[in-house]
Amino acid sequence: MRAAAFPLEGYQPLAIQRVPTQSPDSLPQERLVRLIEAVCPPEKHIASIGVAAPGPVNPKTGVIYTAPNIAAFRDFPIVYYLQEKLGAPVLLDNDANLAALGEWQAGAGQGHNHLIYLTISTGIGGGIISDGHLLQGEDGIATELGHVTVIPDGPMCSCGHPGHLEALASGPNIARWTKEQLAGGATSTLATADELTARIIGEAARNGDELAREAFEQAGYYIGLALANFLHIFNPSIVILGGGVSKSGDLLIAPIKRSVEKHVMNPKYARDLIITTAALGDDAGMIGALILARTGIEK
Amino acid sequence: MRAAAFPLEGYQPLAIQRVPTQSPDSLPQERLVRLIEAVCPPEKHIASIGVAAPGPVNPKTGVIYTAPNIAAFRDFPIVYYLQEKLGAPVLLDNDANLAALGEWQAGAGQGHNHLIYLTISTGIGGGIISDGHLLQGEDGIATELGHVTVIPDGPMCSCGHPGHLEALASGPNIARWTKEQLAGGATSTLATADELTARIIGEAARNGDELAREAFEQAGYYIGLALANFLHIFNPSIVILGGGVSKSGDLLIAPIKRSVEKHVMNPKYARDLIITTAALGDDAGMIGALILARTGIEK
Repeated sequence: MRAAAFPLEGYQPLAIQRVPTQSPDSLPQERLVRLIEAVCPPEKHIASIGVAAPGPVNPKTGVIYTAPNIAAFRDFPIVYYLQEKLGAPVLLDNDANLAALGEWQAGAGQGHNHLIYLTISTGIGGGIISDGHLLQGEDGIATELGHVTVIPDGPMCSCGHPGHLEALASGPNIARWTKEQLAGGATSTLATADELTARIIGEAARNGDELAREAFEQAGYYIGLALANFLHIFNPSIVILGGGVSKSGDLLIAPIKRSVEKHVMNPKYARDLIITTAALGDDAGMIGALILARTGIEK
Repeated sequence: MRAAAFPLEGYQPLAIQRVPTQSPDSLPQERLVRLIEAVCPPEKHIASIGVAAPGPVNPKTGVIYTAPNIAAFRDFPIVYYLQEKLGAPVLLDNDANLAALGEWQAGAGQGHNHLIYLTISTGIGGGIISDGHLLQGEDGIATELGHVTVIPDGPMCSCGHPGHLEALASGPNIARWTKEQLAGGATSTLATADELTARIIGEAARNGDELAREAFEQAGYYIGLALANFLHIFNPSIVILGGGVSKSGDLLIAPIKRSVEKHVMNPKYARDLIITTAALGDDAGMIGALILARTGIEK
């Protein structure tokens, strides 16, 4: 868990701290309260708190549905809890939505009112700004952009359904595909690697390894196929790619662009479209939480 | 082309008329002006005009990109043209978007702020209300919900791309699939039919024909698969099905619901979801154009 304190304006933190989420000594929610208190200068008043949660949440009710591997946060009313403990308004959303908000207001998406943010790392998630509004859905569980079926008989997704985008193009699935090819006898400099991750495969690709290039080519193809659907659905002016795998840059973005161009039903959808990487990196969700928090400050 | 005149409030038309779009004698835009003048009582002032176009348009610039089979409307600035000719504010959108607006404000979707409207007829189109906003996109060409890839190596869509929802579940494609099965030797009461349309196949299904039931079962399966993706993307509280094929009712809706339940990643997406047919029928687009027109009346 990470907490940062910011002044009323600007994006420069006054303080930032990080603690392990799990500990045998205390509940994560108690540790979170102490973490927030630790970053807040004692002479300062907390005007508002924004929370970016890693899993699905309901921003309206202020409840976390589930948090990966953190049982204590299951169906947990975090907004009510933090308000009681800290006496400030609390606003909640999931980290992909808040990364979209952050990139829109303070990152690569400034000036765009129709924006798709897609984060590609261990999983694939997303956030949408449509006509200047963050899309949340009736229960706050919209824009699960990694969980759309791309290949109905494709590999099984972590969520238990076959052929989702996440199961075809997330970091672990780029590694899984590469391992399968190696097991099937493909030749590659990666055959002797101790460990296979998207980052290591990316390095091999940049060093000219054909199999490694193909792994990114294929992931980019599927991301582009899904993106073409998203373009037909949202008609945005910018697509921002975040998450660890997006740091491989053109290795992934070039095949994405080719696949988008191949799959759009009309060139209009791609003609003036910007496809770029996130500007705020791992801070996008935190900056989004800051922007969300500021909407809760009483004027 | 159809035009109707309405009073400032309510949904009861004062007059309604219809003319063929094409005629050797005059341009369709000229015929449209005369049609609007014909429905407007001479003693009345036109406060505002809403236009529902059958193809893609840009609501911001007021330009029709293309209209099926009507060359004169290609890249045609209809808003400017009608404003000049008729001296009233003109607002434009495509008919699926306006049907969504109509069903939301005056039809089956009243009281829902997150709504998916899907029209299934010759083609498949859609409209989205998200958090009380009609989703239009940067250039007005969003929510082409029939043009999402469902089966990447599936049958070719009218737009030239394989495996789109429209190519799997529109009326003509339900008929195409049935014909293919008959040609392959399937037994059915439809084998002796002079003509095969979704309506005729629907009648056979209601009379117990197995092949006909299977045709709707399959179309419903693909619609449900695509809908599950749309639920993950939009998390709506209601899905409204319009268009001619939706009139087959439970024949289509039952398999859609089964497929949605099978494909959602979490039961939450389907638990409180309403899936129902349109209340305004073929008038949904017209009522939506009326609602759009009223937003243009100077207060």
